Amino acid sequence: MLPIPFLLLLLSSILSPSSAADFCVADLSLPTTPAGFSCKKASTVTISDFVFSGLGTTANTNNIIKAAVTPAFTSQFPGLNGLGLSAARLDIEIDGVVPLHTHPAASEVLVVTQGAILAGFISSSNSVYYKTLYKGDAMVFPQGLLHFQVQCGSTPAVAFATFNSPNPGLQITSLSLFGSSLPSPLVEKVTFLDDAQVKKLKKVLGGTG
Amino acid sequence: MLPIPFLLLLLSSILSPSSAADFCVADLSLPTTPAGFSCKKASTVTISDFVFSGLGTTANTNNIIKAAVTPAFTSQFPGLNGLGLSAARLDIEIDGVVPLHTHPAASEVLVVTQGAILAGFISSSNSVYYKTLYKGDAMVFPQGLLHFQVQCGSTPAVAFATFNSPNPGLQITSLSLFGSSLPSPLVEKVTFLDDAQVKKLKKVLGGTG
Amino acid sequence: MLPIPFLLLLLSSILSPSSAADFCVADLSLPTTPAGFSCKKASTVTISDFVFSGLGTTANTNNIIKAAVTPAFTSQFPGLNGLGLSAARLDIEIDGVVPLHTHPAASEVLVVTQGAILAGFISSSNSVYYKTLYKGDAMVFPQGLLHFQVQCGSTPAVAFATFNSPNPGLQITSLSLFGSSLPSPLVEKVTFLDDAQVKKLKKVLGGTG
Amino acid sequence: MLPIPFLLLLLSSILSPSSAADFCVADLSLPTTPAGFSCKKASTVTISDFVFSGLGTTANTNNIIKAAVTPAFTSQFPGLNGLGLSAARLDIEIDGVVPLHTHPAASEVLVVTQGAILAGFISSSNSVYYKTLYKGDAMVFPQGLLHFQVQCGSTPAVAFATFNSPNPGLQITSLSLFGSSLPSPLVEKVTFLDDAQVKKLKKVLGGTG
Amino acid sequence: MLPIPFLLLLLSSILSPSSAADFCVADLSLPTTPAGFSCKKASTVTISDFVFSGLGTTANTNNIIKAAVTPAFTSQFPGLNGLGLSAARLDIEIDGVVPLHTHPAASEVLVVTQGAILAGFISSSNSVYYKTLYKGDAMVFPQGLLHFQVQCGSTPAVAFATFNSPNPGLQITSLSLFGSSLPSPLVEKVTFLDDAQVKKLKKVLGGTG
Amino acid sequence: MLPIPFLLLLLSSILSPSSAADFCVADLSLPTTPAGFSCKKASTVTISDFVFSGLGTTANTNNIIKAAVTPAFTSQFPGLNGLGLSAARLDIEIDGVVPLHTHPAASEVLVVTQGAILAGFISSSNSVYYKTLYKGDAMVFPQGLLHFQVQCGSTPAVAFATFNSPNPGLQITSLSLFGSSLPSPLVEKVTFLDDAQVKKLKKVLGGTG
Repeated sequence: MLPIPFLLLLLSSILSPSSAADFCVADLSLPTTPAGFSCKKASTVTISDFVFSGLGTTANTNNIIKAAVTPAFTSQFPGLNGLGLSAARLDIEIDGVVPLHTHPAASEVLVVTQGAILAGFISSSNSVYYKTLYKGDAMVFPQGLLHFQVQCGSTPAVAFATFNSPNPGLQITSLSLFGSSLPSPLVEKVTFLDDAQVKKLKKVLGGTG
Repeated sequence: MLPIPFLLLLLSSILSPSSAADFCVADLSLPTTPAGFSCKKASTVTISDFVFSGLGTTANTNNIIKAAVTPAFTSQFPGLNGLGLSAARLDIEIDGVVPLHTHPAASEVLVVTQGAILAGFISSSNSVYYKTLYKGDAMVFPQGLLHFQVQCGSTPAVAFATFNSPNPGLQITSLSLFGSSLPSPLVEKVTFLDDAQVKKLKKVLGGTG
Repeated sequence: MLPIPFLLLLLSSILSPSSAADFCVADLSLPTTPAGFSCKKASTVTISDFVFSGLGTTANTNNIIKAAVTPAFTSQFPGLNGLGLSAARLDIEIDGVVPLHTHPAASEVLVVTQGAILAGFISSSNSVYYKTLYKGDAMVFPQGLLHFQVQCGSTPAVAFATFNSPNPGLQITSLSLFGSSLPSPLVEKVTFLDDAQVKKLKKVLGGTG
Repeated sequence: MLPIPFLLLLLSSILSPSSAADFCVADLSLPTTPAGFSCKKASTVTISDFVFSGLGTTANTNNIIKAAVTPAFTSQFPGLNGLGLSAARLDIEIDGVVPLHTHPAASEVLVVTQGAILAGFISSSNSVYYKTLYKGDAMVFPQGLLHFQVQCGSTPAVAFATFNSPNPGLQITSLSLFGSSLPSPLVEKVTFLDDAQVKKLKKVLGGTG
Repeated sequence: MLPIPFLLLLLSSILSPSSAADFCVADLSLPTTPAGFSCKKASTVTISDFVFSGLGTTANTNNIIKAAVTPAFTSQFPGLNGLGLSAARLDIEIDGVVPLHTHPAASEVLVVTQGAILAGFISSSNSVYYKTLYKGDAMVFPQGLLHFQVQCGSTPAVAFATFNSPNPGLQITSLSLFGSSLPSPLVEKVTFLDDAQVKKLKKVLGGTG
Repeated sequence: MLPIPFLLLLLSSILSPSSAADFCVADLSLPTTPAGFSCKKASTVTISDFVFSGLGTTANTNNIIKAAVTPAFTSQFPGLNGLGLSAARLDIEIDGVVPLHTHPAASEVLVVTQGAILAGFISSSNSVYYKTLYKGDAMVFPQGLLHFQVQCGSTPAVAFATFNSPNPGLQITSLSLFGSSLPSPLVEKVTFLDDAQVKKLKKVLGGTG
């Protein structure tokens, strides 16, 4: 029989190519593709690529919505690239809100870990599904549908959101309408909103046109 | 050598199972699955399952938006089931509009065949992309993003939309907000809209709560 | 409360990475991948990437098949990259034909917008499905199956084809056999065609060997 | 112009079919398919299908591994069906362990919400990646690779795991080897373990043969 | 500590649902879906579902093509259902041929285990790739492209084909044209073949119309 | 009518882009992506990219397991890139074994071509499925599950394995545990194995820590 190192050598010819299939840590400096970022060379991958440490602390919610989303998407957490999932932390102060939004590329599961959140979504056929979630409750928001989260109760709320895409996207309806350069007459035409309403919110949310 | 019928008999044992892979015409009476409707038995499939004849005539646009969408999705066109695409005809009268909407499950390519349409979409980062499309122009709307079509010019417009899903879904933002049962205070909270605006549009679009 | 610009700044850290998920406009100069072309940098993307203007005019059908296909695939329409669909215009003169072909990578929906077309496909089990399509009729051709379109009636025909792939491929059976370098004896062996027939068509369609 | 109800009637013909694409809540009594469970009828779907309330309380960890996994997979949370993700709560007592295991059908992101956990995975090329995770740390475990979680520090640990499949599967290596009916000589042959070791662990973990 | 059976009981609540994700053995009596056959109940699955014994013996090649394909697709081998691959045995007598064909739903890898085979495919751009394969040679045929296998040398040939679909489909070009009910004038129109050639082959291959 | 070359010219504008969809031969020098390697330029692709000649000869089995796996994965066989399948040859000497392992990214079909092999897998719910396979028998191993192959009978065994991924991965359980740098106390904690057993096997298989 051959000595052990020879066995390992033989096996390594099988094992080295397959490491590419195990994971594809994003090299953020290389071109992206429809399937995600290009991969770092395997020899430069470390445990740090697979761990993200930003979800433990309360984010700054001193803003207009009294809420903050801390994303752990591919840009922040390159080990997720190609693996089909990501996460985020949600902090909502008393009276805070995560406004109506969609994730174009992912479904979401939200788990409440502190406080209470009134969460809901609207289906394509305009059915409305909403409920107050307490600590330990999980809710699923199907891909691409409008949904929202509103703080309830007497304490700030914290939740973890997870997505079945490393880059779920986030389109906040009111920011798209009133924080973009879409001209006011066009906004009004496609939403039936009044001119005064549109102009008022454009001022608040930074829209132009 | 064996006679021909024997050859065909031999080959048919290979070919009959594979027909299942060719197509899966929807049996609308059977349970649905995450991948679409269950399939009709192959022996009952006819050419009618693969042809849909409803896209040739102008739809009734005598309504609030002066526009109509004629879908050729799985329910209307069962041969599409499992094949990953569908179509729709779009009629927009002078001054008509297809209001802001998303397709949660599909990207769309729109081809204008008559008149002119101002079409656009808004990205997750609130960039706005819009242009007036004339006869023969095609525009792509990436999956899940807010987009709209507005008639321009002096004649009604016609366009064909195609989707990379047999059931793309259609969520019209203003109908979701003002034509559903989402309570007005909640609508206002998650959109920043004024109470008067919300109540006014709920009356027009049939919302409750 | 913080001023608005600060809010927008906070939100932008979430929104900028997600734009990668919205779309991936092809950079035709970068390497391709199994999932399509590499993406242009987001900052260089414009509305022109999402609009293609070549489908409005009758193509030159002064050729042997009296027909022409005008593709709007990724190479012509880079905004389609990664979005899973594409389109093409089909012009068929009187007596013209789109010969028997397959799309290896996509199913197709064809919508007739002018004239009449006899269209059909053959299944794996050699069942034949064909019908004359008139203006407004749509037909679906399942992925990878042999199909054809023949002009009927007294006027030229126009149709729009859509595919559930940005690069559906197009393999014309007779061009593959008689317009390629596959040696004649091999063509005959794998098709049962006569030597004279093969050599005659090779001359017409430019085949060698 | 037509009255509003007529508009809504017109639109509803478009919107009702598309609800099938929005979600597919599992009907656990119908046959399953390779893409998941068959869907409940849309008319019977309620908010309860989209909310799961079992992740808020500490599970019973009075067992051999001093740990417990509370799954929120399709069987417990039917709204997940077809949406491509699921979740679980992980409780690990002091000195507890989630033994070496794989999820054959999913990648995992773990977020620690209490205590500290030493977590790690081994790649196909036998590289080892492990680290002690504290509250707020997230770690990703690529699909199908061997991984483990061990409680550290002076308090019990809690974490939430999420998966990019509604049915990720869970194969615990030692249970597969020593808690199954795989005959001992075969276990020894395919693992190089000693006969005494195999028989000892079979007694502890309930294996036969 | 609790006794072992209690541990196993606890764990079984996690493990039983996940078996659905492991495999989905086809129940050929239930409706099919776009993702394959419905699954047998887990309790009725046995080792026989995962083993197929028909690939060991030479098939009857006493037919017009002096060749035979023995499929191991889902219908013959129900354990493949939902797992994304299948196999077939290929026997080609001296002077035999597997005529030009495509697999609409799969790529193929062919491994020659006896004799020699001249195998090739034609790309969408009419490039031809062919080579004589000997024992131990493997060749890949990309999805949906026309390809063929011809026996060479002085002994019969045997090969194993594998596909990345449990139902790859098999469309033999000459059978589709000359063994179906496609009317001769239509065959001639879409292929440029002569009337006499078409009628001659229809007689041989059993076509009608 | 235009001369033939003009026809071919017209058609080539359609056909050249689509070649990208036909295949994507790996350029092993370019960055990899989550969907596989970047593609070689079409003009440099030859028949050699689609043929691999290493599966015909018995591999060196003079090693500790008396077995050898000869992979035909993307690194050895670049034409497989992006096509969703791969192959390998398996040689097992008398008394040899392919130890317990998983393929994280693929299901496998094994076809025995010489000798006899006792093959089996264990499901997530710890059910065991195993059988002795003879020449011509095929067995399927569902994705990600633990499985093994043991030589039986009086002659060496040969088999061909195929996978529905061009890079299936291969994780040998005992090498992961005893041939890696995972510290012994951790191995023991996550497997329940005795310290002596772990240290003994680490010496044999080259583990450290």
